[in-house]
Amino acid sequence: MDKPSCHIFVCASFRSDGDAKGVCHKKGSTDLLPYIENEILDRGMNAQITSTGCMKACDYGPVMVIYPQGHWYGKVESETAVDEILDAIENEAVAENFLIQ
Amino acid sequence: MDKPSCHIFVCASFRSDGDAKGVCHKKGSTDLLPYIENEILDRGMNAQITSTGCMKACDYGPVMVIYPQGHWYGKVESETAVDEILDAIENEAVAENFLIQ
Repeated sequence: MDKPSCHIFVCASFRSDGDAKGVCHKKGSTDLLPYIENEILDRGMNAQITSTGCMKACDYGPVMVIYPQGHWYGKVESETAVDEILDAIENEAVAENFLIQ
Repeated sequence: MDKPSCHIFVCASFRSDGDAKGVCHKKGSTDLLPYIENEILDRGMNAQITSTGCMKACDYGPVMVIYPQGHWYGKVESETAVDEILDAIENEAVAENFLIQ
């Protein structure tokens, strides 16, 4: 099976019963999913995007985590933020403006 | 913020509307979450567990993905399977019996 070279996890605050009710979801994290998916295609990135249950970083939400890099990003609230993060992935860099220290 | 040295993603087949209806969920992936959480505590592992939306590996479900290692495991249907995978993480090895090639 093909595996992505980059795996982008977007917190959607799912509870164990499936409800998406937490901070990241309330702040619109899932609204950005279509934009991220389109950008990945447009850029031809070998990346997969997966929404997740609460990643326990609610203070920093909306949260996005990139593996295998292990970069945790917070306050990802706009297409501009997504662009900066995807630019960083493509350039093997870190999007400092959104990095959770 | 403390970040885990190992991040375990368990597919719970969430749809974008939050319903957990897909293959991994039907096969009981989320039933194992409490066991995995307890094992992580018992073993004193610096690991975080996160449930996810569909990871698009339904043929291999229930699916578990480990980062930063980038190991994709399938047919994770029992506590024995979980034990083998956690053993592998602790030993910096691969649980060959469940590895998705």
